[in-house]
Amino acid sequence: MSAFDLDMLLAGNRRALAKAITLVESKLDRHRDQAQTILEQVLPHSGNSIRVGITGVPGVGKSTFIEAFGLYLIEQGKRVAVLAVDPSSPIAGGSILGDKTRMEELSRREEAFIRPSPSEGALGGVAQKTRETMLLCEAAGYDVILVETVGVGQSEYQVAGMVDFFMVLMLPGGGDELQGIKKGIMELADALVINKADGDSEKLAQLARQQYTSAMNLLRHTSFWTPRVMTCSALKQINIDAVWGMLLEYYFRAQEEGGFLDKRAQQNRDWLHQLINEMLLLKLSQNAAVKARLPELERRVEHDQVTAYAAAREIIELL
Amino acid sequence: MSAFDLDMLLAGNRRALAKAITLVESKLDRHRDQAQTILEQVLPHSGNSIRVGITGVPGVGKSTFIEAFGLYLIEQGKRVAVLAVDPSSPIAGGSILGDKTRMEELSRREEAFIRPSPSEGALGGVAQKTRETMLLCEAAGYDVILVETVGVGQSEYQVAGMVDFFMVLMLPGGGDELQGIKKGIMELADALVINKADGDSEKLAQLARQQYTSAMNLLRHTSFWTPRVMTCSALKQINIDAVWGMLLEYYFRAQEEGGFLDKRAQQNRDWLHQLINEMLLLKLSQNAAVKARLPELERRVEHDQVTAYAAAREIIELL
Repeated sequence: MSAFDLDMLLAGNRRALAKAITLVESKLDRHRDQAQTILEQVLPHSGNSIRVGITGVPGVGKSTFIEAFGLYLIEQGKRVAVLAVDPSSPIAGGSILGDKTRMEELSRREEAFIRPSPSEGALGGVAQKTRETMLLCEAAGYDVILVETVGVGQSEYQVAGMVDFFMVLMLPGGGDELQGIKKGIMELADALVINKADGDSEKLAQLARQQYTSAMNLLRHTSFWTPRVMTCSALKQINIDAVWGMLLEYYFRAQEEGGFLDKRAQQNRDWLHQLINEMLLLKLSQNAAVKARLPELERRVEHDQVTAYAAAREIIELL
Repeated sequence: MSAFDLDMLLAGNRRALAKAITLVESKLDRHRDQAQTILEQVLPHSGNSIRVGITGVPGVGKSTFIEAFGLYLIEQGKRVAVLAVDPSSPIAGGSILGDKTRMEELSRREEAFIRPSPSEGALGGVAQKTRETMLLCEAAGYDVILVETVGVGQSEYQVAGMVDFFMVLMLPGGGDELQGIKKGIMELADALVINKADGDSEKLAQLARQQYTSAMNLLRHTSFWTPRVMTCSALKQINIDAVWGMLLEYYFRAQEEGGFLDKRAQQNRDWLHQLINEMLLLKLSQNAAVKARLPELERRVEHDQVTAYAAAREIIELL
């Protein structure tokens, strides 16, 4: 990417942005190096956005919500980037967002940039590429970054680890109909947003809201923020403004309490150590002697034929 | 340790057991090697116990509970070992259990073996030594291993990763008095046991039970076991038999569903990979070039002056 392209990217040019993202997502070492050079240049211009993670089970209406929320943000004068982390997405790219017809109106807007999930990631996985894409979008002037995930594997943890605010969309329902919350999610959520709270479902949504509120209140919160539970209807565009109001409240309080930059610094630090860890494990797994020996040792440890300590030491000595 | 000592240990001799544990806990490499030799010999005789993790905030009555529960188990003809994981315990050993007067009656019983938390652990931490001590206790014929933790740092995760069943003791209380559940704990718990459910607190305990039950039911459970919420009074010895009944039910269902050995095999495997990981990171942290460079790179990554990927690659290239 030439200096000219970089200026274009910083000026918000979509083609320059798309080109840089393609380099970030490429599997070729040569492209990877180019991407790193661009990222170094882009870093000083990144960070000026609110990063919002969004998850929820299939059927909860994530695309409808993102479309409604994105259009609302554009009305407020914002530029919106929609990214995705979907470890299950096919090589063709983006089972979630590849089909832009699902966000038809948003995708036609000049102020919106929609990018499907990278199909594969090497080190750091798909999430690593989405993190870097986020930096590029910020440098290109997007004010709000929405990072969507379908919640396969560790993707919610990865997304929660790269955003300022993590939101879980829920379906209305009460009593037996209350859908279970996936393990670990209650700990990650800064807000549960019950979607489809309209018409006949309104009452159910309010009931669900009460139940989730008491459940959330049982968790001990150490930060300045107590997770919220709210209802909305993306389809009828009810309470979409309240979601944005909540995000702004979080943003201002986080700034005030000094938690905003601290959280990002901590996320960066965690990300560094995670990558170092992955690189070490990659080196290990590529070692021929380890490859030949590890499966047998695993089997023996599983069946209590050798202690984990002795097996681990044997592996390390092979290096 | 001689072959004679090993036979003594397998016959349940307390002095031989204590001697082996001392080797496991020693910081000397020579002792560490001896300990590993013993563990290899002991492994075929280990595993025949129910491993139960117990946590709860200070004041919840853990010692009283363990004393009452331990004595009840002895009445049922069981031999009981009480171990502890307390990363905060002083070098003098065992802030939790060092003071055996807290379990005065239990500690006098021949059928009980109480061991305070190891004061420090090298690789794998304090938890690693407790895991190995658990194997020794099993070989010495203890049928139930109770592993206590005060819940400092990662100790609940570590204990949950070495036991068959993880129990969280709670205080009675309702409404505003409901104490928060520490982040992540709800995900680990196979049961919440509300202690001190006696006298005036009985009603509060029942209220708390209802509230925790609805909160737990909101979590999605993939295994055959849905976490229980129950009440008891260790002081008045109310419902202690029901706690044991619940454990037996879990045990038989886990056996039936094939989940019992699978869980242990998975725990062993996780433990192996965790140790390999720690050993790799230890090697890294001992590297002089890395030591000199890492703090500066961390600072730069935190402040968005370099990408995590570029910094991680630089560290790996130093090796």
